[in-house]
Amino acid sequence: MDYVQNTWYAAIWSDDLGRELTPRTYLNVPVVLYRKLDGTPAAIEDRCPHRYAPLSMGKLIGDEVECLYHGLRFDCLGTCTDNPNGAGIIPKAAAIRSYPVIERFGMVWIWMGDPARADPELLPDLGPLVDTERYTSMHGALKLEANYLLVLDNLTDLSHASFVHVETLEPREMAREQFKVSQDADGTLWTRLFHPAMTVPKFFALVPGLADKMDHWLEMRCNAPGVMVTVYGVTDIGKTREEGYDTFNPNLITPETDYTTHYFWGSARTFALDNEELTRTLKGLAELAFTTEDKPIIEAQQKILGRRELMDVHPVLLPNDAASGRARRAIERKIAEEKALARAA
Amino acid sequence: MDYVQNTWYAAIWSDDLGRELTPRTYLNVPVVLYRKLDGTPAAIEDRCPHRYAPLSMGKLIGDEVECLYHGLRFDCLGTCTDNPNGAGIIPKAAAIRSYPVIERFGMVWIWMGDPARADPELLPDLGPLVDTERYTSMHGALKLEANYLLVLDNLTDLSHASFVHVETLEPREMAREQFKVSQDADGTLWTRLFHPAMTVPKFFALVPGLADKMDHWLEMRCNAPGVMVTVYGVTDIGKTREEGYDTFNPNLITPETDYTTHYFWGSARTFALDNEELTRTLKGLAELAFTTEDKPIIEAQQKILGRRELMDVHPVLLPNDAASGRARRAIERKIAEEKALARAA
Amino acid sequence: MDYVQNTWYAAIWSDDLGRELTPRTYLNVPVVLYRKLDGTPAAIEDRCPHRYAPLSMGKLIGDEVECLYHGLRFDCLGTCTDNPNGAGIIPKAAAIRSYPVIERFGMVWIWMGDPARADPELLPDLGPLVDTERYTSMHGALKLEANYLLVLDNLTDLSHASFVHVETLEPREMAREQFKVSQDADGTLWTRLFHPAMTVPKFFALVPGLADKMDHWLEMRCNAPGVMVTVYGVTDIGKTREEGYDTFNPNLITPETDYTTHYFWGSARTFALDNEELTRTLKGLAELAFTTEDKPIIEAQQKILGRRELMDVHPVLLPNDAASGRARRAIERKIAEEKALARAA
Repeated sequence: MDYVQNTWYAAIWSDDLGRELTPRTYLNVPVVLYRKLDGTPAAIEDRCPHRYAPLSMGKLIGDEVECLYHGLRFDCLGTCTDNPNGAGIIPKAAAIRSYPVIERFGMVWIWMGDPARADPELLPDLGPLVDTERYTSMHGALKLEANYLLVLDNLTDLSHASFVHVETLEPREMAREQFKVSQDADGTLWTRLFHPAMTVPKFFALVPGLADKMDHWLEMRCNAPGVMVTVYGVTDIGKTREEGYDTFNPNLITPETDYTTHYFWGSARTFALDNEELTRTLKGLAELAFTTEDKPIIEAQQKILGRRELMDVHPVLLPNDAASGRARRAIERKIAEEKALARAA
Repeated sequence: MDYVQNTWYAAIWSDDLGRELTPRTYLNVPVVLYRKLDGTPAAIEDRCPHRYAPLSMGKLIGDEVECLYHGLRFDCLGTCTDNPNGAGIIPKAAAIRSYPVIERFGMVWIWMGDPARADPELLPDLGPLVDTERYTSMHGALKLEANYLLVLDNLTDLSHASFVHVETLEPREMAREQFKVSQDADGTLWTRLFHPAMTVPKFFALVPGLADKMDHWLEMRCNAPGVMVTVYGVTDIGKTREEGYDTFNPNLITPETDYTTHYFWGSARTFALDNEELTRTLKGLAELAFTTEDKPIIEAQQKILGRRELMDVHPVLLPNDAASGRARRAIERKIAEEKALARAA
Repeated sequence: MDYVQNTWYAAIWSDDLGRELTPRTYLNVPVVLYRKLDGTPAAIEDRCPHRYAPLSMGKLIGDEVECLYHGLRFDCLGTCTDNPNGAGIIPKAAAIRSYPVIERFGMVWIWMGDPARADPELLPDLGPLVDTERYTSMHGALKLEANYLLVLDNLTDLSHASFVHVETLEPREMAREQFKVSQDADGTLWTRLFHPAMTVPKFFALVPGLADKMDHWLEMRCNAPGVMVTVYGVTDIGKTREEGYDTFNPNLITPETDYTTHYFWGSARTFALDNEELTRTLKGLAELAFTTEDKPIIEAQQKILGRRELMDVHPVLLPNDAASGRARRAIERKIAEEKALARAA
């Protein structure tokens, strides 16, 4: 399966990466992640070019990784720096790929494509996750046994919340609202919904002291293929959003293999910043929603599809699939552009 | 793999189907079964045409099924009756297949082929299973990790009983008898064996008060692909069958996937009708025979064959394989006829 | 995948074979092993030619095997000797393959190729394993989830011991030594290394009363595809090998399937012959080395390779791979020769 290569993919939450060699697979490629002595992250191919042993089984020595099998050593650029066998000659071809990584918003991001194009400016803004003055945030991760496009479909059509998450997030009547889809010049895709004076959704009902009926917004910002941010909140009827209770919820998806996906979720809220019990409660609710509501249905889709791609079975489309359709087409376009570039090179 | 489509396949024992959405796979097709409010069974495709989510994860509301993912609702004919999203428009293509089902002999039967041809008259007669005046019956089900044709081979060659079931059913010397194979005008296949004055088989040795030596019959009625009835019994030497102890034992096999099979077994006896302890004992014996004797050897065959079909490896055939050979050829013929019909349409 | 057929492969340690029908797979072929009444081993195909049931599920009666499914009986030459069904006619085609086996050096060996070429003289000499006057020996077996060529690479490049087995066998500095590769006229391949006056390797440090520094040799004798013997030992500085402490360590690898390998290891030592505690300690160490050091890295290679062959991904080769390269080429040559023979026949 083809993937967009020239983009920043979420690799691992910052607090999950230390000095241990950490093996991960992205876009079917085995990668080993680690932190250098200065604390910055590094990512190189997780297979020694000599015998295809995973380097992650070896040792981290300073900023270099030594293969367990025959001791070849590689720096964080993928250059072989030592062959401790015999005369110690290092073959020219003894190099592996290294991957640009950048740490921002509490996340380590990886660029699986052409390193020359790895521009930090291309990172979508997830500022609220680390803006501790205005937000309190939390995050988690799970693995889905499904192709990432099924997860993208799920996230770009928030109407599913009124059914899949009817016990945890949105009431059923929200589905009757029509999401407005729009697109920025840079390709950022938006779906937006505003519901005045409605019964407060389940999620907010957990916040102490809110009114029974409030104005509610539910929005999705999508930077395909991997960054989708849900923004939802409530405010007293007729008041501004700034006066209300807002949340900023990145959902970051990274293909692991053709049929498995890394799913990272974060959530930053603008209210009750110091209420740690509320943080714990909301975190439990989010994990419940992702693990027991989204994950089973998405994995069940994949099971029915088997090795087929959803669009290849010509499913019936609904108006709510507009955003997902646009995102999928944007991904196809990017992949085609990258192939054209590769042919030209 | 091709299957006979235009036939009634055993779907589920009546007492295993209620108001829960019950997912099953037949001939590689996911189906959801349920009972309508009036108690009659229904069967529709178990995948929503919108996102291929299994409908069986959704809710049964009245006689309709609501998809968990986005709330589309389908009736028992597969028609989409509600789209609770946005303006609620239902695309014309939003329909799924429904399957004719019929409940008879304590079993729900399903017709996976052309609904127009689903004639209840085509159901083989399993009357004894529900004739509580003349019979006491019992039944069970198991799943085999093997292609259904290997199960058909097993059932159409009862000589295996003298080896595989030598501890539970037939003595070894029975194998020396020659089964007579014959065929009715409607294609019903019979293998018949009669052994006068023999040591009572294990199964009947459990019945109180029988003689040591009796006349014994062992017959198989096969309506390929899926309905095979074993009839076996004993009577005092020289007496009629009606005067003796007879049993009527349907074995119903339905392909689940190319390498797994639903196996339903029933057993009705003409004697000791009210002896519940005997029923329990005989049921235990039957389950033992199917689960620890037939299942392991059939699954081991499949394991050795891998993805090959038995006939493609050109096995050595014995005279006892005559019935199995006829049944397999009848199945091939039916499949070819259905393909010709499909091409003509 | 193609394999060398005309060679003796290690099948099972003698003390693991008795009167039980013992199913094993070699070169993707199911085989059933057993001992005849006279104690000698036999090996026949483990699938009845009638229905492809595994004969190993049946019964051993005298020197013959009876199929569980319909009672066909086969002798140790694969001839069907009895059909207990009906008139008892045995079809001419009712025969299975039998495989030449020979028991020597405490091991049962099997010849999967042309029986006419199964010459016992072709067995490599593993005499020390059974020379109880001059040696004390031990052995074990494990299964690897990897193609046998990855195991062959491991064994023919002993430099890996200084990394993978640095805690159990060889010190890291040994890797700096250059192995000398040579080949006998009969194709036997040798890699040899001699290190004067070095710190005693871990393995020998367990032997009571040795000096801290000794002369050390480490050699590998390879008869591809399946027989590799490591010889390593120490002697006081400047003394002969005969005056020292030597060990003879066969590593016998037999492909089970394309991605699994039977691995048999033996070890015979020339010293402390009656020290049973030392035998236990060294056996524990060997099992630790094979199970927790070699096995994980070899299986991890296979996992990264998936269904690809290592040479097809064009790995970077090091001087230490010379022996492995020669052994692989010898195997390719033998396979090509056998194919040419088969075409000529």
